[in-house]
Amino acid sequence: MKRTLGVCYYPEHWPQEDWAQDAARMAAAGITWVRIGEFAWSRLEPQAGAFDFGWLDLAIETLAQAGLKIVLGTPSATPPRWMLDRFPDMLALDAAGQPRKFGSRRHYCHSHAGYRQAAAQMATVLGKRYGRDPRIAAWQIDNEYGCHDTVLSYSDAARHAFRDWLAQHYQSVGALNRAWGNVFWSMEYDSFDQIDLPNLTVTQANPAHEMAFRRFASDQVVGWNAAQVGALRPLTDAPLIHNYMGRVLEFDHFAVARDLDIASWDSYPIGFLSDRLEGDAAHKARYLQQGDPDMQAFHHDLYRAMNKGRWWVMEQQPGPVNWAPYNPAPLPGMVRLWSWEAFAHGAEVVSYFRWRQAPFAQEQMHAGLMRPDDQPAAGLAEATAVAEELRQMPDVAHVQAPVALVFDYASDWAWKVLPQGADFDYFRLVFDAYKALRRQGLSVDILPPDATGDDLVGYKAVFAPGLATLSAPLLAALATTQIPCLIGPRSNLMTSELSTALPLGPNLPDLDIAVARVESLPPATMRPVAGGGAVLHWVETLEGSAPAVITGEAGAKLLVTNGTLHYLAGWPDTALWDRLVDLICANIARSRLPDGLRLRDTATHRFAFNYAPEAQDWNGQTIPAAGVAWWPLSADSRTG
Amino acid sequence: MKRTLGVCYYPEHWPQEDWAQDAARMAAAGITWVRIGEFAWSRLEPQAGAFDFGWLDLAIETLAQAGLKIVLGTPSATPPRWMLDRFPDMLALDAAGQPRKFGSRRHYCHSHAGYRQAAAQMATVLGKRYGRDPRIAAWQIDNEYGCHDTVLSYSDAARHAFRDWLAQHYQSVGALNRAWGNVFWSMEYDSFDQIDLPNLTVTQANPAHEMAFRRFASDQVVGWNAAQVGALRPLTDAPLIHNYMGRVLEFDHFAVARDLDIASWDSYPIGFLSDRLEGDAAHKARYLQQGDPDMQAFHHDLYRAMNKGRWWVMEQQPGPVNWAPYNPAPLPGMVRLWSWEAFAHGAEVVSYFRWRQAPFAQEQMHAGLMRPDDQPAAGLAEATAVAEELRQMPDVAHVQAPVALVFDYASDWAWKVLPQGADFDYFRLVFDAYKALRRQGLSVDILPPDATGDDLVGYKAVFAPGLATLSAPLLAALATTQIPCLIGPRSNLMTSELSTALPLGPNLPDLDIAVARVESLPPATMRPVAGGGAVLHWVETLEGSAPAVITGEAGAKLLVTNGTLHYLAGWPDTALWDRLVDLICANIARSRLPDGLRLRDTATHRFAFNYAPEAQDWNGQTIPAAGVAWWPLSADSRTG
Amino acid sequence: MKRTLGVCYYPEHWPQEDWAQDAARMAAAGITWVRIGEFAWSRLEPQAGAFDFGWLDLAIETLAQAGLKIVLGTPSATPPRWMLDRFPDMLALDAAGQPRKFGSRRHYCHSHAGYRQAAAQMATVLGKRYGRDPRIAAWQIDNEYGCHDTVLSYSDAARHAFRDWLAQHYQSVGALNRAWGNVFWSMEYDSFDQIDLPNLTVTQANPAHEMAFRRFASDQVVGWNAAQVGALRPLTDAPLIHNYMGRVLEFDHFAVARDLDIASWDSYPIGFLSDRLEGDAAHKARYLQQGDPDMQAFHHDLYRAMNKGRWWVMEQQPGPVNWAPYNPAPLPGMVRLWSWEAFAHGAEVVSYFRWRQAPFAQEQMHAGLMRPDDQPAAGLAEATAVAEELRQMPDVAHVQAPVALVFDYASDWAWKVLPQGADFDYFRLVFDAYKALRRQGLSVDILPPDATGDDLVGYKAVFAPGLATLSAPLLAALATTQIPCLIGPRSNLMTSELSTALPLGPNLPDLDIAVARVESLPPATMRPVAGGGAVLHWVETLEGSAPAVITGEAGAKLLVTNGTLHYLAGWPDTALWDRLVDLICANIARSRLPDGLRLRDTATHRFAFNYAPEAQDWNGQTIPAAGVAWWPLSADSRTG
Ligand SMILES: [Zn+2]
Ligand SMILES: [Zn+2]
Ligand SMILES: [Zn+2]
Repeated sequence: MKRTLGVCYYPEHWPQEDWAQDAARMAAAGITWVRIGEFAWSRLEPQAGAFDFGWLDLAIETLAQAGLKIVLGTPSATPPRWMLDRFPDMLALDAAGQPRKFGSRRHYCHSHAGYRQAAAQMATVLGKRYGRDPRIAAWQIDNEYGCHDTVLSYSDAARHAFRDWLAQHYQSVGALNRAWGNVFWSMEYDSFDQIDLPNLTVTQANPAHEMAFRRFASDQVVGWNAAQVGALRPLTDAPLIHNYMGRVLEFDHFAVARDLDIASWDSYPIGFLSDRLEGDAAHKARYLQQGDPDMQAFHHDLYRAMNKGRWWVMEQQPGPVNWAPYNPAPLPGMVRLWSWEAFAHGAEVVSYFRWRQAPFAQEQMHAGLMRPDDQPAAGLAEATAVAEELRQMPDVAHVQAPVALVFDYASDWAWKVLPQGADFDYFRLVFDAYKALRRQGLSVDILPPDATGDDLVGYKAVFAPGLATLSAPLLAALATTQIPCLIGPRSNLMTSELSTALPLGPNLPDLDIAVARVESLPPATMRPVAGGGAVLHWVETLEGSAPAVITGEAGAKLLVTNGTLHYLAGWPDTALWDRLVDLICANIARSRLPDGLRLRDTATHRFAFNYAPEAQDWNGQTIPAAGVAWWPLSADSRTG
Repeated sequence: MKRTLGVCYYPEHWPQEDWAQDAARMAAAGITWVRIGEFAWSRLEPQAGAFDFGWLDLAIETLAQAGLKIVLGTPSATPPRWMLDRFPDMLALDAAGQPRKFGSRRHYCHSHAGYRQAAAQMATVLGKRYGRDPRIAAWQIDNEYGCHDTVLSYSDAARHAFRDWLAQHYQSVGALNRAWGNVFWSMEYDSFDQIDLPNLTVTQANPAHEMAFRRFASDQVVGWNAAQVGALRPLTDAPLIHNYMGRVLEFDHFAVARDLDIASWDSYPIGFLSDRLEGDAAHKARYLQQGDPDMQAFHHDLYRAMNKGRWWVMEQQPGPVNWAPYNPAPLPGMVRLWSWEAFAHGAEVVSYFRWRQAPFAQEQMHAGLMRPDDQPAAGLAEATAVAEELRQMPDVAHVQAPVALVFDYASDWAWKVLPQGADFDYFRLVFDAYKALRRQGLSVDILPPDATGDDLVGYKAVFAPGLATLSAPLLAALATTQIPCLIGPRSNLMTSELSTALPLGPNLPDLDIAVARVESLPPATMRPVAGGGAVLHWVETLEGSAPAVITGEAGAKLLVTNGTLHYLAGWPDTALWDRLVDLICANIARSRLPDGLRLRDTATHRFAFNYAPEAQDWNGQTIPAAGVAWWPLSADSRTG
Repeated sequence: MKRTLGVCYYPEHWPQEDWAQDAARMAAAGITWVRIGEFAWSRLEPQAGAFDFGWLDLAIETLAQAGLKIVLGTPSATPPRWMLDRFPDMLALDAAGQPRKFGSRRHYCHSHAGYRQAAAQMATVLGKRYGRDPRIAAWQIDNEYGCHDTVLSYSDAARHAFRDWLAQHYQSVGALNRAWGNVFWSMEYDSFDQIDLPNLTVTQANPAHEMAFRRFASDQVVGWNAAQVGALRPLTDAPLIHNYMGRVLEFDHFAVARDLDIASWDSYPIGFLSDRLEGDAAHKARYLQQGDPDMQAFHHDLYRAMNKGRWWVMEQQPGPVNWAPYNPAPLPGMVRLWSWEAFAHGAEVVSYFRWRQAPFAQEQMHAGLMRPDDQPAAGLAEATAVAEELRQMPDVAHVQAPVALVFDYASDWAWKVLPQGADFDYFRLVFDAYKALRRQGLSVDILPPDATGDDLVGYKAVFAPGLATLSAPLLAALATTQIPCLIGPRSNLMTSELSTALPLGPNLPDLDIAVARVESLPPATMRPVAGGGAVLHWVETLEGSAPAVITGEAGAKLLVTNGTLHYLAGWPDTALWDRLVDLICANIARSRLPDGLRLRDTATHRFAFNYAPEAQDWNGQTIPAAGVAWWPLSADSRTG
């Protein structure tokens, strides 16, 4: 498939007389796609029921005339002020019970039926007008679900919807009491109407209560999205897309994706390094102007898993952003590097955010491809270079990676609800595994938690760390697979109700092992491992007959195996992760990469991305800081 | 007295068919006592007024049949959900004005008259049914007062009760205005009904206002407890007990204890080290799996002071807990060590929490003596060993310690309200003194703040650091005693209304000294002391004729004395504390102990407890890490 | 002008029989002024409408009899409790929506019309009674505007007043929508009544919205003050004064000052170092008992700029305070040093807070000149020495400083609203510049942001760092001045509506330069500068033809100039600030001072103040720690 570039554009921010020139310049830069409309509700429907599509018609016409394909957004992330007059109770409440007021964006509760209906109605109106318009080549629904912590709402609407959800799931309040173990502190309910949201309790709420609320909240996002999908589907054949964010984990993206056609995400490498990644000061200083070397790749691989490989970068950082604690500029070359990295991981489109930096409002310090004074910003030349390179490049053809990594949103919720140790974070654990694989040059595919035996076919290794509860399909697959698999730590120790599995987990097929006890450890405490490395944060005491491959210094079993399946009883440090990759991926060609260099294989090429701030030598080539290189790949040289 | 073991058990969590086996196993392990019922209200009274005692009758019968003695708890810490329908305003409010909702435990305001009455009524119902039942050998009232910050409530009920309390204490609002100095910022009131709770003021509230609220809140706990005592006393002769917590200081435990027969507390050494003790990272790492070497002993000594020496450990940590930021396992041996340490300090009973780890709800990660899969957990063997050792051991007979240490809850409130320096904490100061005494092998008795001359008889040294206001009895005792006493710093400088004492304190008998000025210091600032050591956090400028025993480097008086009474004008560092113990305890045999080793003398034996993670040599014996040793004690070898 | 001393006194706190002796002692100590009344509303009007002036009459008479001149305060900072019965909605709300309750002080919202009226009425009552009384030589209006974060209120009164303010400023809601760029996220309003205060939004509110709220809130303070000025002006000829605080920036002090006659401020050097200044631990430890060596001088210079040079220190710290996290005592000599420093900077009066330490209520740990037991505190002797020295000293005559520094409250609001980097703080930037000037012995005058060409006459250098928007008068002045000026970083890049300036700023006269891009940097990231020093926190990319005087290591322009005007494109470290002072102040005699020593020139003398904790040699003289020295100044020896 031929890869293309896009850009996000807000015609409503600029004089109409500038649109044609903007469109021409986009086209000249080699841009194919333009996303519009997703924040424009107050211009599309200035008063309730009074629509104004004239400007949008003109914008579409102008952009299409320049040869651009349009992604049209539904504007439900920014309901206009009059919507609040209609639905004064549509706002979310935070966990402290405060309303999250109008004045920015995402000021709605997913559980509010009235606003949900109004948003779907808006999608219908747009669908009727533009659904069969060939210039509208794709749709974006809403914008960045979960951004600004907007999944969990404690509003009246949420409370009532939660009670309905519980009634449907448990059928009887007695069943709920039993499932949650409400006898524990006399927390038993007589009716669903007595059940409140799990905020503001005197001490921690029942984890089962919180877990149910997490599942409910995720379902509310799915249902919210589905309402608009339901409105648009009959009206258009263009693909439906949502633009997810980085490390937003409060809803199940796989579940949302089931209703959509293409996944996309918004990639802000430098902001993300600063505001949502662990890492010591040296790491953050080293990658200050590049972003973490694995964060983008991880999300590329994650979102590639959503819709049978169809995915985009809907928003690509093109320069300094405005919303992180500190906002440095990308190193020269990084915009190109990020773009090519996305393509190497299979993106169909990389779309820059935004065309021109706005001179007003919240994001006026967020760079675009153009400066607010209509001069080219630094990113434009790099984007243009990518467009030119794309023209030279043969199609980027995807190929299955040698390693599969399982990712499960519900496990994140489980460990947030019941961390047991302040540093136990699911994403961090999975990301540590991902980084370990990538340090050895391996390409990775991400699988959903209900991956089946069929889904595992073709992989040479499977990693599934930290799964709170293993799904039935995955358990079945593990029972028969011959692929080396790593499970653990803290895997399958809980039921889906977040109670303790009995018999004690992990209850893996043909692996006689049980976790007799767990310990969480403060950051400075390491438990050394025989042969090198250490565990930290978390360590389990195993009992059972499965033989140990790796043990603690005192001989305690740390990694056990039945030959294929491996269970890991602690949180590895970097050195131990390296040993684990060596062990599980022994049958895959690997090589330890220079610090900051990363590889990615397509069907035909190997790409190298140098995230380091200095040049790195690789494969006989010197790759400059922020540089990209690629080589044709013969079958025998493929490593990961 | 013969010491015994107990365990906490929740028959309502388990199938009835398992109870008999559980009871048999408890007995087999050497357990004497079993505590039940304290969270079971929703099973005892599933609907308002509809009681169900069948299961409890059966549980009592089953446990008693196995030879176990029962502690029956009143369930008022966990009112069932229907109680909120009856009293929607029974919830506490936090200082920010948020309700502290149903969904965990302790969801009530001590000032709510309706729920107080309902809880007392439940005690009456239980007392009528079981008060004369010989199988019920003791009662526990409520559970862990003050846990989860539940003493201070800002509810309407609290506001109204506070006004009544003020009216009773001050009789006229004019008297209150004068006592508080409300003229200061035109804070004068015209009536008690104008007085609000001291939260959410623009800047700090009048400290006298806050101190009155603290006294009131403590009295509300006393009154709450007394209501149930009043219900049970006519109905039973079994002793009434409450289980206090560690470092919960918001109410006066001495005052609660006056209505009870036995004090008990819940000892979680590893959790407490992590979540409620000062200490640098090295200290916390060293004792990660043992707990602070003095925290348990301090509370043993404190609660021994409550009811003429009658005290228990009602809940003893038996393995990893769930509620601290990090939850490692105890070193092998620690469960035994903690148990023996309690006995050496005079405990009648050590009761483990809990029999079997629950597989659901909030505490499912909290270890028991049994695992959730009904297999023995690590703690069981150690408990069983203690039971066996108890059988071998002659009675543990208490003896008066050589050193008395005064502890006063109101001083904690005073310095919380008016810290003057961010690091001035009363408990920390007293605990530093306690640690210094224990580093030299001294056994300590704790005395209440109104200790009399009679109470001091027999001690060789008295320490009373940081008393906001000295009580009349203690002042009278100090006027005549010949025992070396250490008073200060910041002692008797304030009135009980938290205004400045005039003449300037400490106003000690026969000690011509006044604190002319105080300074608080940031952590990095030390003021060296002539001869070794330093003061930190706090230093006073003394004037008056009392001679100095220790001075600052520039000659300022730091420790002054009249020969018997010593006043200390600063917060000592460790080296200075050691000097002070040498000085005040010069007439007591002492010896500097290895790091982590602690001694405790009974009437007949000296016990040594090795909290260190390595073996320590002592008295010609090598005591392993987490080890206990004891020797018969001849009168001349007794040191502390 | 002859300089004099004053003191703050609260006769209502003490028995009437003590007043005469207090007054006599004040006079004996050389004190000229006494401030009274500013917190005494509950005694002046114990019940609504029932006044009691008897005690105040007597206090005035007693003080005046001793020869003291009286500053009478209006008591509006402490409305009595009955005022809340009258205006239950007069309280401010914090940003979380919580009321800021009665029980301390400043418990009112500046926007509450009813209380504003009541406060003005009280001023009228006082003015009628005492306005022509010759013993009342000055008035203080209210107390410490903005203290305890009391400028920004989110009450209903504030919301309604904000809407009115917006309506008056923008006239039409369409104009507001355009000015704020509300199209950005469909934030457009249909009427002013839809506009809420900018708190509790889901993510950041529109910076234009927040900036308007900031301007409004400042105007409310101005209007509040003006209401009392309006009440008093017709009734008295005595000067009207307000006592500002240190680093309180939420309202425009220049605007308040326009209605007053004399500026004053409350100088607490040690508290301010601890609770409101940046600085590493070594700096804070070194100056723990002296205060920052530039903080007082900066505010002296700032408040001297308010009312044509007429200013006082209304409250001078005389010993340890009570309100900082840690409260050490001043080094001996510091009370004298602070006093003389104020006079050297032009203060007419230095008034100590307070005469006698109160033995009750919030500030009972705050030292006075007298102890609570009526003995002299350490500060009294130093104050008395200053009084004696003043008698010996010729008049302190002010002279224009060689350097002007522009200070703009609105720039602080702008960068608080839109920091772009977590460490970008306007005050910190300006204060860094001020410190750099003072390190070289320069005296500084502060100018308002709308300084004109006339205002610049006589200066040899002008520093104007960090101005969000340059005023028209200042821009005009810069266009013609021949004085070396330093502008930048981040200067004139925004409009007054906090939108991006177009063409891109700084748009300075005859300086072809534009800021093409900005970057904010985390604390550990430094960008070295060719020739020495570095930039941190903030760096801009310049384009344009103006030649560079200083460049980054890679050659990027950092300081550009047209010969007179210099634009600085980054936040300098200390070494770079020194270079900048060398460059801009090349024509002024300077000398690098020992660490902690500071100079200040009057018309006739050079003063040296040694803030260091050790003696420093200067001008052939050894100045002890906390010492002051002065020399007659000949015109040719004047440096700064
Ligand atoms: Zn976005
Ligand atoms: Zn407990
Ligand atoms: Zn003040």
